[in-house]
Amino acid sequence: MARKASLSGFPEWLPAERVVEQHVLDTLRRTFELHGFANIETRAVETRAQLLRKGEIDKEVYGLSRLAAEDDKDDPNALALHFDLTVPFARYVVENAGHLAFPFRRYQMQKVWRGERPQDGRFREFTQADIDVVGEGTLPFSYDVELALTIADALSALPIGDFRLRVNNRKLAEGFYRGLGLDDPDAVLRAIDKLEKIGDDAVAKILIEDVGATAEQAAAALALAKIRTMDTSFVEQVRALGVEHELLDTGLDELSQVIAAASKRAPGKVMADLSIARGLDYYTGTVYETVLVGHESLGSICSGGRYESLASKGKKTYPGVGLSIGVTRLISRILAEETVKAARSVPSVVYVTLAHDDSWHEAQDVAAALRGRGIACEVASSAEKFGKQIKYADRRGIPFVWFTHADGTHEVKDIRSGEQVSADPAVWAPPAQDLYNTVG
Amino acid sequence: MARKASLSGFPEWLPAERVVEQHVLDTLRRTFELHGFANIETRAVETRAQLLRKGEIDKEVYGLSRLAAEDDKDDPNALALHFDLTVPFARYVVENAGHLAFPFRRYQMQKVWRGERPQDGRFREFTQADIDVVGEGTLPFSYDVELALTIADALSALPIGDFRLRVNNRKLAEGFYRGLGLDDPDAVLRAIDKLEKIGDDAVAKILIEDVGATAEQAAAALALAKIRTMDTSFVEQVRALGVEHELLDTGLDELSQVIAAASKRAPGKVMADLSIARGLDYYTGTVYETVLVGHESLGSICSGGRYESLASKGKKTYPGVGLSIGVTRLISRILAEETVKAARSVPSVVYVTLAHDDSWHEAQDVAAALRGRGIACEVASSAEKFGKQIKYADRRGIPFVWFTHADGTHEVKDIRSGEQVSADPAVWAPPAQDLYNTVG
Repeated sequence: MARKASLSGFPEWLPAERVVEQHVLDTLRRTFELHGFANIETRAVETRAQLLRKGEIDKEVYGLSRLAAEDDKDDPNALALHFDLTVPFARYVVENAGHLAFPFRRYQMQKVWRGERPQDGRFREFTQADIDVVGEGTLPFSYDVELALTIADALSALPIGDFRLRVNNRKLAEGFYRGLGLDDPDAVLRAIDKLEKIGDDAVAKILIEDVGATAEQAAAALALAKIRTMDTSFVEQVRALGVEHELLDTGLDELSQVIAAASKRAPGKVMADLSIARGLDYYTGTVYETVLVGHESLGSICSGGRYESLASKGKKTYPGVGLSIGVTRLISRILAEETVKAARSVPSVVYVTLAHDDSWHEAQDVAAALRGRGIACEVASSAEKFGKQIKYADRRGIPFVWFTHADGTHEVKDIRSGEQVSADPAVWAPPAQDLYNTVG
Repeated sequence: MARKASLSGFPEWLPAERVVEQHVLDTLRRTFELHGFANIETRAVETRAQLLRKGEIDKEVYGLSRLAAEDDKDDPNALALHFDLTVPFARYVVENAGHLAFPFRRYQMQKVWRGERPQDGRFREFTQADIDVVGEGTLPFSYDVELALTIADALSALPIGDFRLRVNNRKLAEGFYRGLGLDDPDAVLRAIDKLEKIGDDAVAKILIEDVGATAEQAAAALALAKIRTMDTSFVEQVRALGVEHELLDTGLDELSQVIAAASKRAPGKVMADLSIARGLDYYTGTVYETVLVGHESLGSICSGGRYESLASKGKKTYPGVGLSIGVTRLISRILAEETVKAARSVPSVVYVTLAHDDSWHEAQDVAAALRGRGIACEVASSAEKFGKQIKYADRRGIPFVWFTHADGTHEVKDIRSGEQVSADPAVWAPPAQDLYNTVG
């Protein structure tokens, strides 16, 4: 990992590093499928009109144009690369609604592109792994609970160490601000969102000077954002602040359901954190963020929330709840820290050597017999000295080297221990832990 | 498959269709890894200078520019989407040569983009699956044989019916033309490449009028292109044309090695076809194309060849041999013909119903027990009538529905047969053929 990407912000992995990434993606796929999520992929491009609907992010979007044609930046039907998987998914749901069964649960693992300035943990091309459940018209709240548990399961299965899923609820926050007498809850949220970056005093100043809060209102909003609990005791702490509002009650109830279920089913992994705001406007209830314990500076590695109207067509709406894992951000940290490594740089378990150049066919027979039983192997391309052939295997971490002798007998050597035994290509198998390239 | 892509040339699959695509990709991955190929991914973008090096294809390239910035089409460092995986791989090899072990064998399965006019089997965004072996300085010819066998193995494992890998050799063709006295073999090859489209007479006319061949030379070049054999008898047929050249001898020997090995190890799958030219200039020896038997109009589904100097840095060259499978082209045909289908549209084997809304936690316990033993399942989100809950499973093709009774006992029902039996979440398992979503 001393290597630098040849194009800043566009990371590429070496084969052994890619094994780690594949392991992460395979593990996520397995967990999501165990939880009943179906996979889809959407095209890499959307129309610019589709992508710019939400405002704000236009500066980050990569436009596309055929080099042979003129690019018209103002053409809403011109194409651009997607910057997340949520907007494309919303379009996919609306377009294919007649072919989908709702509630529709899907996972999606693809690359996305943002023309931002690259920095630690922030890339121009990166992989996201998203899960969402989308309903037609309505979506029961229990999915907000289920998604937190699914993600806790998925992240627990990854070689990333401890993490903390921080959950909040927009209704709770909005109800609290309205109960306080602050009528622009979005403005308050935007200020609170800056808390970690600029600190209490600066946020209070914004609330008072820009949002029109009194000092008492600002203090109460800040007090709310300080509440963090691993259980449902946050409810009492909020109640102690003495604010009343119907929406606050709903939000407290919803967040309690998530935290109560999570403290039972994923103990220690999920907490109520009433400072979590999430920048994007489309969230309407539960919001999630996730930090790697000990790597908080990396930012959130998995975020999302409940949205009521991201996707709609005419009078039909498709409310949903979902989370997105920043796979590349995770991988880049795992690789930089070298906390996990692939056992070898290639899938092969066995390297089949050649005694003579004309024994290539014989060696292919051995290889075919091994592959037929699921054992990955390679055949030498020419009959170099055995020392050189063994070195070929050694450089790639291939643990076993196969020899076929003039009398038709075979031997296989574990080049780690040096142990060499006779073997039959029709029955010999490596130890289970060597069969696949592992990550540990 | 009555659906149309909402953006012409950018296909998107429904969940059950994606299962078929995943099956194809998983099968290719498995086969390539059994043959010792390591996976890599390269970034989606290259500099325009890198992509336009080979000429010809510039009109098909999608340029990229941040919407916030001005696009300068003449800037060689500006970015564009890759149109294949070969050019990016060549760059990757040169950049990472110090970290790779040569010969380096890799597979790569990614999307590529071409701004061409979409038509049957031709897309603007599509997935390719490539295998290549690249050496440092030299690469033994046995890899040309091995790659043909690996691809025959991979395609045989796919649910695509019969296929034919057609192999030719540039040295054979060039040697033959030179032996005939034609000194611009590339021009002859370009004409021969049009044979299938425009026919003998038109090709002969080009050879005579544009390439300067005599009628006899043109006739001999056409006679060579007519030769197709499933075994090495093509050698005699070429010899019978009475042309002599050293390069022809080398080409005949190389192609014989491929065909001899393939007729033994992949009988009926690989043939010598002396009409195969391949458009791209960088091939220097073996060239491959593949047709689906009965779907010849689809064009080649897997093509490639040997290249001596695609990748180079200073005096170092990295010769290679590789093939690329047009995955999207294959999938689109499989889906259109409905020759194979996914067993269900979701991964879940079991749908865990709710008797009451407050039995959600109990149901999650059942689900956790099943998932812990690798059984994919979903839990109902609310306690609707059982009929409705069963319909939920039925619409998705989930074969089993789970009931937990008030007395704490469990039953599971196969909704295909109607059979309902008592079951214990700690031990019950579905039949092996239902465990994973299968394609057949």
